[in-house]
Amino acid sequence: MSEKLWDKGYQLDSLIEDFTVGEDYLLDMKLIEYDILASIAHARMLQKKNLLTVEEFSAIENALKKLLNLVEAGKFEIKKEQEDCHTAIENFLVQEIGEIGKKIHTARSRNDQVLTAIRLYQKDELMQIYSLIKDLQKSLKKFAKKYRSVQFAGYTHTRKAMPTNFEIYAYAFVDALQDDLKLLKAIYEIIDQCPLGTGAGYGVPIEVDREFTAKELGFKKVQENPIYAQNSRAKFDALIVQTLLQIGYDLNKLATDLIFFSLEEIGYVVLPKQFCTGSSIMPHKFNPDPLELLRANYHRLIGNLMQILSLSSNLISGYHRDFQLLKKPLIDSFETVKQMIVVMKVIVDGLKVDEEKCKKSLTEEVFSTHKVYELVKQGIPFREAYKMVAIQYSKGGQV
Amino acid sequence: MSEKLWDKGYQLDSLIEDFTVGEDYLLDMKLIEYDILASIAHARMLQKKNLLTVEEFSAIENALKKLLNLVEAGKFEIKKEQEDCHTAIENFLVQEIGEIGKKIHTARSRNDQVLTAIRLYQKDELMQIYSLIKDLQKSLKKFAKKYRSVQFAGYTHTRKAMPTNFEIYAYAFVDALQDDLKLLKAIYEIIDQCPLGTGAGYGVPIEVDREFTAKELGFKKVQENPIYAQNSRAKFDALIVQTLLQIGYDLNKLATDLIFFSLEEIGYVVLPKQFCTGSSIMPHKFNPDPLELLRANYHRLIGNLMQILSLSSNLISGYHRDFQLLKKPLIDSFETVKQMIVVMKVIVDGLKVDEEKCKKSLTEEVFSTHKVYELVKQGIPFREAYKMVAIQYSKGGQV
Amino acid sequence: MSEKLWDKGYQLDSLIEDFTVGEDYLLDMKLIEYDILASIAHARMLQKKNLLTVEEFSAIENALKKLLNLVEAGKFEIKKEQEDCHTAIENFLVQEIGEIGKKIHTARSRNDQVLTAIRLYQKDELMQIYSLIKDLQKSLKKFAKKYRSVQFAGYTHTRKAMPTNFEIYAYAFVDALQDDLKLLKAIYEIIDQCPLGTGAGYGVPIEVDREFTAKELGFKKVQENPIYAQNSRAKFDALIVQTLLQIGYDLNKLATDLIFFSLEEIGYVVLPKQFCTGSSIMPHKFNPDPLELLRANYHRLIGNLMQILSLSSNLISGYHRDFQLLKKPLIDSFETVKQMIVVMKVIVDGLKVDEEKCKKSLTEEVFSTHKVYELVKQGIPFREAYKMVAIQYSKGGQV
Amino acid sequence: MSEKLWDKGYQLDSLIEDFTVGEDYLLDMKLIEYDILASIAHARMLQKKNLLTVEEFSAIENALKKLLNLVEAGKFEIKKEQEDCHTAIENFLVQEIGEIGKKIHTARSRNDQVLTAIRLYQKDELMQIYSLIKDLQKSLKKFAKKYRSVQFAGYTHTRKAMPTNFEIYAYAFVDALQDDLKLLKAIYEIIDQCPLGTGAGYGVPIEVDREFTAKELGFKKVQENPIYAQNSRAKFDALIVQTLLQIGYDLNKLATDLIFFSLEEIGYVVLPKQFCTGSSIMPHKFNPDPLELLRANYHRLIGNLMQILSLSSNLISGYHRDFQLLKKPLIDSFETVKQMIVVMKVIVDGLKVDEEKCKKSLTEEVFSTHKVYELVKQGIPFREAYKMVAIQYSKGGQV
Repeated sequence: MSEKLWDKGYQLDSLIEDFTVGEDYLLDMKLIEYDILASIAHARMLQKKNLLTVEEFSAIENALKKLLNLVEAGKFEIKKEQEDCHTAIENFLVQEIGEIGKKIHTARSRNDQVLTAIRLYQKDELMQIYSLIKDLQKSLKKFAKKYRSVQFAGYTHTRKAMPTNFEIYAYAFVDALQDDLKLLKAIYEIIDQCPLGTGAGYGVPIEVDREFTAKELGFKKVQENPIYAQNSRAKFDALIVQTLLQIGYDLNKLATDLIFFSLEEIGYVVLPKQFCTGSSIMPHKFNPDPLELLRANYHRLIGNLMQILSLSSNLISGYHRDFQLLKKPLIDSFETVKQMIVVMKVIVDGLKVDEEKCKKSLTEEVFSTHKVYELVKQGIPFREAYKMVAIQYSKGGQV
Repeated sequence: MSEKLWDKGYQLDSLIEDFTVGEDYLLDMKLIEYDILASIAHARMLQKKNLLTVEEFSAIENALKKLLNLVEAGKFEIKKEQEDCHTAIENFLVQEIGEIGKKIHTARSRNDQVLTAIRLYQKDELMQIYSLIKDLQKSLKKFAKKYRSVQFAGYTHTRKAMPTNFEIYAYAFVDALQDDLKLLKAIYEIIDQCPLGTGAGYGVPIEVDREFTAKELGFKKVQENPIYAQNSRAKFDALIVQTLLQIGYDLNKLATDLIFFSLEEIGYVVLPKQFCTGSSIMPHKFNPDPLELLRANYHRLIGNLMQILSLSSNLISGYHRDFQLLKKPLIDSFETVKQMIVVMKVIVDGLKVDEEKCKKSLTEEVFSTHKVYELVKQGIPFREAYKMVAIQYSKGGQV
Repeated sequence: MSEKLWDKGYQLDSLIEDFTVGEDYLLDMKLIEYDILASIAHARMLQKKNLLTVEEFSAIENALKKLLNLVEAGKFEIKKEQEDCHTAIENFLVQEIGEIGKKIHTARSRNDQVLTAIRLYQKDELMQIYSLIKDLQKSLKKFAKKYRSVQFAGYTHTRKAMPTNFEIYAYAFVDALQDDLKLLKAIYEIIDQCPLGTGAGYGVPIEVDREFTAKELGFKKVQENPIYAQNSRAKFDALIVQTLLQIGYDLNKLATDLIFFSLEEIGYVVLPKQFCTGSSIMPHKFNPDPLELLRANYHRLIGNLMQILSLSSNLISGYHRDFQLLKKPLIDSFETVKQMIVVMKVIVDGLKVDEEKCKKSLTEEVFSTHKVYELVKQGIPFREAYKMVAIQYSKGGQV
Repeated sequence: MSEKLWDKGYQLDSLIEDFTVGEDYLLDMKLIEYDILASIAHARMLQKKNLLTVEEFSAIENALKKLLNLVEAGKFEIKKEQEDCHTAIENFLVQEIGEIGKKIHTARSRNDQVLTAIRLYQKDELMQIYSLIKDLQKSLKKFAKKYRSVQFAGYTHTRKAMPTNFEIYAYAFVDALQDDLKLLKAIYEIIDQCPLGTGAGYGVPIEVDREFTAKELGFKKVQENPIYAQNSRAKFDALIVQTLLQIGYDLNKLATDLIFFSLEEIGYVVLPKQFCTGSSIMPHKFNPDPLELLRANYHRLIGNLMQILSLSSNLISGYHRDFQLLKKPLIDSFETVKQMIVVMKVIVDGLKVDEEKCKKSLTEEVFSTHKVYELVKQGIPFREAYKMVAIQYSKGGQV
């Protein structure tokens, strides 16, 4: 048995149906648990408002819990003709408990239902990412501690500049990730608003208790305005992917550094062999593939953000089916960033420093600024001192 | 039996392996047929250069054809631990014909192998799209013919402007698609270069006959320069997705028009019910979901292009593992555009015009420019005539 | 007199010089005031650390204040051959007070100098935007209050859906902007870190008091890590433009709504004539140009963000001259958003509601959901009730 | 005297006017010459169709030529209150020749007028770029010839791979640019359509000779469909910027290579000092700033393209004022690419090769593939040979 929520006695053109469903029935497997939990909270509210009897609620709750178990056990699939998890849930209820199941959609629309499920999902994912970043910071701190005394030549303009060390280097990323944590917390608080009860963007013509469901689901507050609820979907998706991009930026840079630092010709760090893949043609190669893929995955986030920003523009207020295509870039961005952090942690944990090569990088010209300051300490104005030292480098290895 | 092409006696960290393989083993199912065909051509060349005996070639060719049949019958899968289709093919050969199979990789690298397979795939897809566009043009012409006499008010600035008709309207898209066909042809000719034999970007240290394999595979010419072969991967991917975006632009606009024109308040066109889905809460609704999804899918292409452009920038010449992430946006763009064209054709075929509403749109002010030209024909300078007519509209329904 | 800060006795190729300076000498006019203020704080710190005498500091401070007055009076220009505001300032000092001026660059680099100036600029701009948004919210609230009793049909899928009113409608944007204010505050706190004293990313080889300068300049804290200071430049620029995009999103949607709502065929709102431009050919036209440009300016922000994200990727840690091109998209984004908010406020203030047309939009089917709930209140399960009502609309104006 | 083309007796709100004009009056200085030429052709056609007398045409032509001289001499400015070059031209005509000038706008709209001027501008710019690329190719060929015998180690995965030489290297870019030339030619042919006479997208209600003006202006054909003419604006702008991105991609890669190759630690090439700027703090530095800015300018193009693609999406057919914001990214992209090519040519012309360092890069493992092929030539299957050689590198400098 599978019936669309909007069924009113006609069939969609089958090619059109395929197109409109798209990948939703697959993507929604990421959302269905949240949709079930939100459905239980919603039913409890309906009971409280006497729109369900105690017995009806109990039947619904039991059926939904049964479904949750099936989902968690990997024994439930959304069928393509069901379109999405919302339909799959209602179909399941009607199949399990008959007529009572047809009451679950009272006082809600798929529009606020999907918003609620997505927001619960987003909150969970943001929490997970928060904790993964803390783990990565720990690894970076451990690395910093282990190699803190090792000095090497830092670069500007991809040219040797001045001395630095691995404690400072590693903390550049600990600090960057710390700012990411602040941002994660801030945007978590912004999105922590319950849209359940806003219907299709214009409320529902029956009294509901929105405070109750918001509290049940652990939201900090009700998202009052029903039109804003709809408009906030793409807005919050963009906000989240923008935040993930901040994390991605740090990892893209760290990966780029490590590819460069592990160049034979630089050699500050060494990647363990088990992190390197080989070439199908050149037997001597040990390539930094995971770092290259870390670097590349950042751009996946950029693509996702661009899609979200562009797709949601130039549209009037209210739900549009276009929003269906917001799911994939959102989910993909979460999955991508989680994997990036986990992989980076493994790499940082396994990274070795080549102290000999670091030492060799500290050639005389890396201390040119120190020479300037010796003169400054003798009272020579900085700009004069600079010029006095600069003369020594006037040929500078350049033609 | 499954062995990596670069196997040299150590194991990758398992999490790293998972990460580096990513979705490649799935995506490569789109490429494996082309890879097999290119492998046959390559083996034939090896035989010609006496790097394979006639018997060895024959064994390889038979095994590869067997594999092709398995693939076409849906009976072959690339295993995750095989990383990609190239490894799966070599593994299959060794399994089928033993030692001889280990010779297939002579004089090539995975780098030129994947480039060749991708390029054959791209050529095929571009051909398909060319033909799909021609079909859509036919539907548009049919629509134009059917409703050519129906006039309606055209818009500028989302405001009624001047009269037009459905023949002109439909041909706006026939002509746009005609320019897309020209572009498709031009870029097809640009990418029609065979990279096989360029190895990992620095050739192979053994004599090969590149003209031969290029001809065998139907390429117009050899892509001579091995470094450019590698650098052209992301370049051509971008070129192709940019071209698909030109098509997407036309369909995004047509979809946006049809959503607007089928508004109850405008009503120029009517979408058959079987193209409209309903609401889970509002029983009166017939929503233009396929048109909204057509509109939205354009942005998927934008996201894909952005990912390709950004990912491939700021990198030195030569292959980087980052390029692995080029596959998905490329394949996704082809799939997306093909589906968009097919769906749009179905919609155009089913579209009805509401002649009554079109007629009603032709209110008096839509002819204001005609009034100006009546005066111009009487010899009044245009700008004077314009002002004389403008006075009548000075309040213009505005406050 | 104009001498480059890195002058060491040779001339740049003139075409190259033109290219490297680019528009910096013009863009830096937005930053020079902040650079002067930071230079005064820096000099004060140098005096405190006995790197300047009291007299030297006093001479520098007076000269810098004189320069500030010139800038504020519009009487100072950065010359192209000076490259940037940093050079212009040092040149001015040397010209005014001779040898003492050559000491100003002690213990700093152009790299931390530009970072500090930019960050002060960013903080100021964010403050201004915060206050502009509050003004716009006031206008929206006033509009909401004035027209709160006016009901109209809200849309989903660009199709009439259910009744709403202008109080709810206007508050959809008040609430969205309220979330923007939260985000603005959060990111202000994240970027509120003083990079002065981090030199070129590797500190300065002389003792400085970074707490002192940070406090002098009103920063909440010192940005400790010198490598992160450099890496945070593009990161924070992106963070800011992402935040501005959130505001832009709201205004793009509001503008799109108002273009649609002011369509003759919908007519909920009326744009005063003095907000509408005309056509050069059609005398009857009153076009919503400022709303269209508001809508379009959002995409300018998208372009700016994409430039920042892409430009700063795949680069190793440390300053790169590429960062020079971050200035324009940053400054342009601030200018664009400020103008968007101001213009939107003017439009909201002038906007009129056409109560008659709003009333007419409330056709019978807009209440279809209400009918369903009449049945639900009688005890009919929602899904049954939905179907009973749906039958009435089975033809729905559709073929 | 300055009067808007749509003047009908009321004033715009001054803040709104400022906003709607934006930078147009400045950007249009790039277009005004083309607009004048198109106006002359248009007037000639009007005379041919007896909408102007011979004397009137002559007066108009003379006045327009006078204006052209003023513009070319840098003695003409578009005033802000004139909005754009079209208004400036008509104002000039009326001022110079009175009533006759008011006839110039007969049978055209600003919409087709601006399209025509932009297209003429685009054709000219594409021609210039074509010729600049040919110059750059010449420089690359000269470089290739000069250093063709110099071998060095090529890279894959930013790791030394196999030997190559500067002839192959330089031709990688000659060939890439050759494909760009093909694309330039193809898109030139696509856009070579004359939109003059399409009015505001719905034609003009008076007979015109479109073939005549198209031929006069050197267009290959008339762009027949008036709706497509409007829709093609953003479409062609995107097509052009996409093409410029292909060139930008090559230059981004070449610049990235040269930054890497000129690293002290690699040292294949040497940048003459007059191409390098210094540091304000480190006297030993010679930084590759022009190459970094070349690299960065590519992203400016990406930002421009994204703005164009996103801005023009989700809009119905016909002109929207949003299109005004297409001018800047288009013009900026042309200016950016032209400068990039010119600067790159100067750099290639000045580039030196360090033969000693190139030689030193050819360490033993760079020939590992050659060793494999020695074994292959002895009859050992490739994969076996690969493994035999691989054993020697099993530690490979890796842990």
